[in-house]
Amino acid sequence: MTTLREVQSTIEMLFPKRGAESWDAIGTTTGDPDAAVTKVLLAVDPVSSTVDEALDWGAQLLFTHHPLLLRGVTSIAEDRYKGALLARLIRGGCALHAAHTNADVVESGPTGTIFDLLGIPQGPDHRIPFEPLVDQPERGIGLVGDLPDPISLREFVAKIAEIFPVTAGGVRVAGDPEMLVQRVACCSGAGDSFLNHPLVTGADVYLTSDLRHHPASEAREQAKINGGKPALVDTAHYASEHLWLAGAAEKLAAAHPDIAVRVSTLNTDPWSWHIRQDA
Amino acid sequence: MTTLREVQSTIEMLFPKRGAESWDAIGTTTGDPDAAVTKVLLAVDPVSSTVDEALDWGAQLLFTHHPLLLRGVTSIAEDRYKGALLARLIRGGCALHAAHTNADVVESGPTGTIFDLLGIPQGPDHRIPFEPLVDQPERGIGLVGDLPDPISLREFVAKIAEIFPVTAGGVRVAGDPEMLVQRVACCSGAGDSFLNHPLVTGADVYLTSDLRHHPASEAREQAKINGGKPALVDTAHYASEHLWLAGAAEKLAAAHPDIAVRVSTLNTDPWSWHIRQDA
Amino acid sequence: MTTLREVQSTIEMLFPKRGAESWDAIGTTTGDPDAAVTKVLLAVDPVSSTVDEALDWGAQLLFTHHPLLLRGVTSIAEDRYKGALLARLIRGGCALHAAHTNADVVESGPTGTIFDLLGIPQGPDHRIPFEPLVDQPERGIGLVGDLPDPISLREFVAKIAEIFPVTAGGVRVAGDPEMLVQRVACCSGAGDSFLNHPLVTGADVYLTSDLRHHPASEAREQAKINGGKPALVDTAHYASEHLWLAGAAEKLAAAHPDIAVRVSTLNTDPWSWHIRQDA
Amino acid sequence: MTTLREVQSTIEMLFPKRGAESWDAIGTTTGDPDAAVTKVLLAVDPVSSTVDEALDWGAQLLFTHHPLLLRGVTSIAEDRYKGALLARLIRGGCALHAAHTNADVVESGPTGTIFDLLGIPQGPDHRIPFEPLVDQPERGIGLVGDLPDPISLREFVAKIAEIFPVTAGGVRVAGDPEMLVQRVACCSGAGDSFLNHPLVTGADVYLTSDLRHHPASEAREQAKINGGKPALVDTAHYASEHLWLAGAAEKLAAAHPDIAVRVSTLNTDPWSWHIRQDA
Amino acid sequence: MTTLREVQSTIEMLFPKRGAESWDAIGTTTGDPDAAVTKVLLAVDPVSSTVDEALDWGAQLLFTHHPLLLRGVTSIAEDRYKGALLARLIRGGCALHAAHTNADVVESGPTGTIFDLLGIPQGPDHRIPFEPLVDQPERGIGLVGDLPDPISLREFVAKIAEIFPVTAGGVRVAGDPEMLVQRVACCSGAGDSFLNHPLVTGADVYLTSDLRHHPASEAREQAKINGGKPALVDTAHYASEHLWLAGAAEKLAAAHPDIAVRVSTLNTDPWSWHIRQDA
Amino acid sequence: MTTLREVQSTIEMLFPKRGAESWDAIGTTTGDPDAAVTKVLLAVDPVSSTVDEALDWGAQLLFTHHPLLLRGVTSIAEDRYKGALLARLIRGGCALHAAHTNADVVESGPTGTIFDLLGIPQGPDHRIPFEPLVDQPERGIGLVGDLPDPISLREFVAKIAEIFPVTAGGVRVAGDPEMLVQRVACCSGAGDSFLNHPLVTGADVYLTSDLRHHPASEAREQAKINGGKPALVDTAHYASEHLWLAGAAEKLAAAHPDIAVRVSTLNTDPWSWHIRQDA
Repeated sequence: MTTLREVQSTIEMLFPKRGAESWDAIGTTTGDPDAAVTKVLLAVDPVSSTVDEALDWGAQLLFTHHPLLLRGVTSIAEDRYKGALLARLIRGGCALHAAHTNADVVESGPTGTIFDLLGIPQGPDHRIPFEPLVDQPERGIGLVGDLPDPISLREFVAKIAEIFPVTAGGVRVAGDPEMLVQRVACCSGAGDSFLNHPLVTGADVYLTSDLRHHPASEAREQAKINGGKPALVDTAHYASEHLWLAGAAEKLAAAHPDIAVRVSTLNTDPWSWHIRQDA
Repeated sequence: MTTLREVQSTIEMLFPKRGAESWDAIGTTTGDPDAAVTKVLLAVDPVSSTVDEALDWGAQLLFTHHPLLLRGVTSIAEDRYKGALLARLIRGGCALHAAHTNADVVESGPTGTIFDLLGIPQGPDHRIPFEPLVDQPERGIGLVGDLPDPISLREFVAKIAEIFPVTAGGVRVAGDPEMLVQRVACCSGAGDSFLNHPLVTGADVYLTSDLRHHPASEAREQAKINGGKPALVDTAHYASEHLWLAGAAEKLAAAHPDIAVRVSTLNTDPWSWHIRQDA
Repeated sequence: MTTLREVQSTIEMLFPKRGAESWDAIGTTTGDPDAAVTKVLLAVDPVSSTVDEALDWGAQLLFTHHPLLLRGVTSIAEDRYKGALLARLIRGGCALHAAHTNADVVESGPTGTIFDLLGIPQGPDHRIPFEPLVDQPERGIGLVGDLPDPISLREFVAKIAEIFPVTAGGVRVAGDPEMLVQRVACCSGAGDSFLNHPLVTGADVYLTSDLRHHPASEAREQAKINGGKPALVDTAHYASEHLWLAGAAEKLAAAHPDIAVRVSTLNTDPWSWHIRQDA
Repeated sequence: MTTLREVQSTIEMLFPKRGAESWDAIGTTTGDPDAAVTKVLLAVDPVSSTVDEALDWGAQLLFTHHPLLLRGVTSIAEDRYKGALLARLIRGGCALHAAHTNADVVESGPTGTIFDLLGIPQGPDHRIPFEPLVDQPERGIGLVGDLPDPISLREFVAKIAEIFPVTAGGVRVAGDPEMLVQRVACCSGAGDSFLNHPLVTGADVYLTSDLRHHPASEAREQAKINGGKPALVDTAHYASEHLWLAGAAEKLAAAHPDIAVRVSTLNTDPWSWHIRQDA
Repeated sequence: MTTLREVQSTIEMLFPKRGAESWDAIGTTTGDPDAAVTKVLLAVDPVSSTVDEALDWGAQLLFTHHPLLLRGVTSIAEDRYKGALLARLIRGGCALHAAHTNADVVESGPTGTIFDLLGIPQGPDHRIPFEPLVDQPERGIGLVGDLPDPISLREFVAKIAEIFPVTAGGVRVAGDPEMLVQRVACCSGAGDSFLNHPLVTGADVYLTSDLRHHPASEAREQAKINGGKPALVDTAHYASEHLWLAGAAEKLAAAHPDIAVRVSTLNTDPWSWHIRQDA
Repeated sequence: MTTLREVQSTIEMLFPKRGAESWDAIGTTTGDPDAAVTKVLLAVDPVSSTVDEALDWGAQLLFTHHPLLLRGVTSIAEDRYKGALLARLIRGGCALHAAHTNADVVESGPTGTIFDLLGIPQGPDHRIPFEPLVDQPERGIGLVGDLPDPISLREFVAKIAEIFPVTAGGVRVAGDPEMLVQRVACCSGAGDSFLNHPLVTGADVYLTSDLRHHPASEAREQAKINGGKPALVDTAHYASEHLWLAGAAEKLAAAHPDIAVRVSTLNTDPWSWHIRQDA
């Protein structure tokens, strides 16, 4: 029998706590470390659909990227959705555990996985983190690296649209479709805080999510007096953080051959549809 | 069938939320507002013994004075006692709800009940709160009022020891046993923040709990140059906040005749025994 | 001859300063109050394209919704785009002035104009601001009001897509296309801070911009346990704040018949193209 | 003739300033460094009774553990007891000097002395501070160490009651009297901030003072799911900080053979009597 | 016999506490309220020379404008000058009491007295405070008012130099000596925080003390584009706050005919000499 | 052709950015790095007179000690003097660049130049900074060093008055004119924050600017119980920061032989005249 405590240890080896930001709320949100675990479901978000999936399947652990209680709560009453989810998980005997910024910084985290899929070579000579960890400078939030060959922005975006899970909102782009891009900066999830980072302003294209009007507009205006770079490619936050789960599931399964591990295929992007406007 | 939501409404009428301090975490900590309630247990503290009692009896609501999550938490994992209590309550179908500073300020709250038991007359002419609510100046934290007749401090303390539930630590006193006391200042629970309040320094005796060395010492030194008043009487925090529960239970039962209401008689003072030193 | 100072007075009458948030940086960013003004260009954003348009046309005033220096700067050197724009405006003799949150709160501001175009009746009985000004409770940020008749969310979004200027990103929606909506909450620009506002959670649909994954996801999860409302409709920030400029231009022209007033038709949404993903 | 300045130097050697917490107010509170010193009185607290004793005896220095002005004052008028004490000391030619957290951290400080009296072996292999000084890791606030042999909690508490000066409140205990204890964590004075420290939660018993309801209750609840450890033993704050004075007096006398050094035997615990409640 | 307590009451009537700024430390710094007072010395500063004067004369009260302990202290040891002064005052039986910002705001305070000496009419129609007290809008810090007739700045400064006590540094002026001034803004002591106040920028001349390079330079540069006003006249801080003492002494003497009241004539400006540079 | 970018590089070599305080706003305030520079004017202050001089002479760079925008601005409209200066500089094709605390810390900065003129030997053995840079401990704000021979304070001040540019306010002194001074502490500009620094209290005289009443008075009172040292010498802020410009101009000219470099001789002290008071 494998306990939650043993799975916690495996997760700690894969995505060590010390890699997490100080404001993060990683780890086990609910669950008994001594409980047995035979099925683990991985998902980006701890939301009603993925909780349903975990309980329907009989999982004892829902392992997500986003923590449910990122900010502290003083109530888990069931008229608040977070309280309702926690109560259902507890009644259903399913723990909840998150690897968030501690997953973002490792080689096999969301950004590293996107680089793998783009064919950018691995290793510290080829991938530089925006914010290296103090004691492990080859790891950190955000990465910059070079595609094997320059391609047009149009081709780059087409590749992203193909690699990433489908979402209603698709992919938004700022930049000339014909410009050549080779140096790629990427931060899975919300990466606006790095728009002025030298590794980003020095790249040909910045791939991230959740860019709002003002940061995007300011970055584009500054790009215009810097030769038009970097182009901006904005995907659904969910989409950019889904790809690494397959690799994490494999590693968990390898460490615990007695546990069934599954990656949720449910789309947890909040947007359900989209209307294109025609000029 | 009575729902938790209906009991919440009754509690709101008895101990309105707007009476609570801004830092407090009153209300429902766990529970589904639409669940049926047939048994309610009242207690000072949400701890393992009172949770046991509630679940053993089959209560659907544990109604306490102290909130379990006074400070926000980002995890309710079961290797932390608060997480373990919440999981047991959820599995046992028992909600948890607290009336804390919102109970302290009403006439029938802990301090008001102590005044009743001391025979201090009711009403705004006889009882002045230390910190009146802005819109209800007759209500507030802490009370000062006069005993019908002056008695010796020794007699006063004996009465307190008799009225209050028995605790291992008993009652500590600073002041001449023979001094006469009539004007009583009282703040149930931890009342050190009021030691310099004019209503306290103007009283003959201050009855409260959880006084530590420095605040008590400073108050006594200042008292010495102010004629020796107020004497200090320090009881167990639990003891001072238990007495009002009987009245609250009565009012809940009256509003919900179909609900069985019970006050826990378990002592939740953390101290289990005490050694007297002999000079 | 009309001076900038006189135009400032007109703008103050239309969009009084006291309506602005304390953190805002409205008013004249650059310009000499005694300079003559014969041409005024209105735009949402002070960016290179609208500055070009103003200077090419010979305008002496570029009047925008967004302030260029929302946060204070200690340098306007020309290797930063804001410095470069300011230098070009100063050399070209063109002032820059913003009406931002002071425009948001008036009846003819961005949100009010959207309500006009949706056919929601005018007046304080029909439009309630989220955050009423203390001294003018009928004005304020955000509005809630009822459409004359309920329509399907699909129809509502189609109408928005038609009314709003075309942008690459189109309109993203969360909610059942067939649900009926009548009560509309709207906050032009970035409205995520109001997602938990009772007037928003009590509406059928919330129309705003710049919603990111986490606020949108949390609002949708909470909506699911509240009957699915409100639906969320997310447009380009630029689009939601362009519509009121026509009305403002009219009012400025009426007050200053000797001034030529024009609304920029340039799209200042930073996104230049978009790729739809197919399932 | 020995001056106060020379005594200050001796105190600095025994209890160096750099060991003090940043918030502490150690050192000379009142006194002229060039004044002659022939008699020194040591006490835990600078209160009226110990000031009387110092002046009656003709001491030129009252050396205490607790600083009189821990928080800054803008008045020493004599209608405040601190001002009255300072005026009496100045008129009586008696200086006041405190060694507080700088005494807590040294081997011969209050906690170290208690360990000596409990027979816990000396030296860094046997005593680990909770918070080691950065540059002297064998010193620090709080200590954990092992009794030579396990004894029952009942015996342990009896020994404490015997060793410590008698106070009205006696000793409060939380824990099974028959449990065996060997690993002792101790912090003289108010030690609640260390209740969650791993060295404390890993001990069999925690001996400290001034524990209030909530910290004690939370520690006991957590202990219950951790095998019942540590037990809590709460003594009078004064009592726990009196024992080291004898050693300090000896060292002062050895350094200054021309000075008469005396330890006050006055009990400065603020509580003058206590009532036991019977079940 | 008059006690210090009675003198405190008189001071409270003349300069009520509620007029003081929240950061101020007015009132009795040292002294016993029940001590007899037969001689009172008034001075701007509690420094060694004025303490000497008070003790030499046998005063029981030194009443100053500036508080000795504006910021809280945790030591009054005598190797710090404030401790040395306090010890000397206590040994000499002389109390110390300050009326600072509570004196600044009343009609007969430092600024009001300067206005009297300049011949500016009294009363709320003629003197407007910069910062009116909430409940007494005719009182407040700083005043603006009109001289009976315009005079040249040269004449104005000559008058100030004549009225004010002589100090080594004399009077510094920024402004054309021949400009006419009639509207005078004045803040005794350090008035730089009001340099941008509309009542100051709207005056012909601003009379204050302790102006440093940057505030003075910025005010003058702004004045240059506002027609050269206000001129700045900077005197010794001591000088501007000495003049009101005569009036305060008179009022104290009138209230306490049995007390001898004297104003110190010692110059407590820290600067002892000055060198003029020749071009 | 030399560009502004090349001059920036030279300034960076002379006065590296990493020497600046974190709150400072050094560097280029306005200007295009690619613009040609043929004439550079140096001045202490960016004010209307020095901007006039730069534009009249046809300079493309005004290089000052004080930054114009030390605190961030959200408007450079021309009814504020800073906006007016910036607009004139931009229209006149003249950049503005400041070296402030980054100049203060180098050997040839304002304080170092004063030491040179006083004949204090150069080098880390002879000049100790108050606050050494972490990585270059021989550099830092403030200096202490010894005159070759002791001289009277009177002679020292006479020398200062002769060396420093003439200002209306002259030089203020606190201390006995006949005392001998050899150890000189100096901080050009406003140095009050160092009045309690051991290197200052250990010096014979402290030379600085902008000392206000309270810091100067407190320092003098403390000096009185420390043997009268240090004396205080207070000059115009402008005067103390002018002397280093000649050396900076020389170095710039040496690095860029094709650029004409000139030091402004305009006095930018805000005080235009001064009246001496006679006893």
